[in-house]
Amino acid sequence: MKEFELIKHFFSQQKVKRKDVVLGIGDDCAVIAPVNNHHIVVTTDTLVAGVHFPLNTSPKAIGHKSVAVNLSDLAAMGANPSWISLAITLPVIDESWLTEFCQGVFELCEFYNVQLIGGDTTQGPLSITITAQGLTPAGSYLSRAGAKPGDWLYVTGELGDAALALQHINGEVELNSNFVEAIKERLDYPAPRVLVGQTIRDYASSAIDLSDGLISDLGHICQASNVGANIVLDALPLSKIMRDNILTDDAINLALSGGDDYELLFTVSEDNKVGLETALLHLTTQVTCIGQINASKTISTTLNNKPISINTAGFEHFTRK
Amino acid sequence: MKEFELIKHFFSQQKVKRKDVVLGIGDDCAVIAPVNNHHIVVTTDTLVAGVHFPLNTSPKAIGHKSVAVNLSDLAAMGANPSWISLAITLPVIDESWLTEFCQGVFELCEFYNVQLIGGDTTQGPLSITITAQGLTPAGSYLSRAGAKPGDWLYVTGELGDAALALQHINGEVELNSNFVEAIKERLDYPAPRVLVGQTIRDYASSAIDLSDGLISDLGHICQASNVGANIVLDALPLSKIMRDNILTDDAINLALSGGDDYELLFTVSEDNKVGLETALLHLTTQVTCIGQINASKTISTTLNNKPISINTAGFEHFTRK
Repeated sequence: MKEFELIKHFFSQQKVKRKDVVLGIGDDCAVIAPVNNHHIVVTTDTLVAGVHFPLNTSPKAIGHKSVAVNLSDLAAMGANPSWISLAITLPVIDESWLTEFCQGVFELCEFYNVQLIGGDTTQGPLSITITAQGLTPAGSYLSRAGAKPGDWLYVTGELGDAALALQHINGEVELNSNFVEAIKERLDYPAPRVLVGQTIRDYASSAIDLSDGLISDLGHICQASNVGANIVLDALPLSKIMRDNILTDDAINLALSGGDDYELLFTVSEDNKVGLETALLHLTTQVTCIGQINASKTISTTLNNKPISINTAGFEHFTRK
Repeated sequence: MKEFELIKHFFSQQKVKRKDVVLGIGDDCAVIAPVNNHHIVVTTDTLVAGVHFPLNTSPKAIGHKSVAVNLSDLAAMGANPSWISLAITLPVIDESWLTEFCQGVFELCEFYNVQLIGGDTTQGPLSITITAQGLTPAGSYLSRAGAKPGDWLYVTGELGDAALALQHINGEVELNSNFVEAIKERLDYPAPRVLVGQTIRDYASSAIDLSDGLISDLGHICQASNVGANIVLDALPLSKIMRDNILTDDAINLALSGGDDYELLFTVSEDNKVGLETALLHLTTQVTCIGQINASKTISTTLNNKPISINTAGFEHFTRK
């Protein structure tokens, strides 16, 4: 256990020092002085080796992803990420592994001014649990509930690349070697859409981040909002790598059901559409309108303006009729 | 993964509904509206099966202990426990196991009005990470730093019973069968000293909870406060079970170096001593003065008013001269 104490010193090397952190790493607890009249937004995500990332994933990527999946949840609420607590279970202490892991954690934290305020280091099979917290002005946050029939459905970035990378790693698909690095980057280094989340906070009617796949996560919005939706398959944002390497049908299927995209899916009313699109103009993130909410309580899809039936494994949580 | 979604429903059965929880379990994040002009106190602790509890520990005890070790950290800061996030990694889904586990979590949470606001359920080797949060009035919290030479050293409850229970489970010591249940209770169901922590918040100069053992944790206070301490071994609070079952030397050694007590260790100035003792009168928790802080930067012990040398395994973090 003595050596595990040393790890604390690893984690106390972070450069970010926020003014609202009264007491950081090193005591029984951290102490935070949040600004008055703000809500605190809290999320916890665990990554288990071999389940949430392939066993041979680089330590830096594991560090990045552990933070990214949590910041992605905060982004879906429109929150400003502020503090994380990191609980890591390690089979052995490997200094070079830890150095790279911390690099992945710290680089992303630094970008968003997120301070590591504490955590726990234990011995056991590799797994990382991060609790991330952020701030929103009181009363101003996004949730899965709130989508209304007629609202437009948007998604950030491009869909399915992470799932394609995983298929490649598992030997299920062959890719042109020129594309392998770029596609692995999408799996290993997801970019949480923090700035988009903050920008749409006052315009969008609902939001979620895409971790399980578009259909599955859209199902969560539909369930929480008591609505249905139609996805225009022609409109799905597919990367050049996808379009150049696999059949369109397979690409659409990956975009609909592949997990690990960590893009934002959100809805906006007709009235707020222009305001939202204008607000997003100053960001470089691609945003695509991919369909519309309706009152059907089912999820449908169209291609070339015709209804088309889909069958996807990501579609678990929301009963389609 | 579908089944793991179901677990969420298990965890949403909690009775506690706090007014400051704007959005609880079920969205991408929880949303909290903390009262203005308060600090938020945050801690994270992981329990790994076979490391932090014996493999045959009852699910209810595991649930209780997962919460208790975190509330104990909050108690050491003098905080009011408020919200927890629970990340649990399970090898398989066992409904009766989960029912009992939740019972352990919920009973303790209910007692202190703590709401489970979210978490994550994943598949893998059994481990539980809880992030617990509490509130203190702004500027009013305890830490390990602040002990001054002349301050009196106090501890709650009785020491060493949990370590004795572990020795018994490991077959290292035989206990009269009448005592086995009672002593196992001390290991499995530690009582976080939440009310003591809140009561001493405005009187104590430093505090820590005893997880690694008295000497080790006193070392943390000494290091953070840049002081030393003398422990009066005659004063150590030993349980009747300890006194009746093992040699005094062994009992003292367990009290000094045994872990898992989750009692509070704190210091108070001569000026605040009477105020603190008076404030504690309305609580039923036993509190014992066991020594005094000095300027030596070492930890010493006395027995019958004479210095006595100790050699204990718990004494890792603070260099004794």
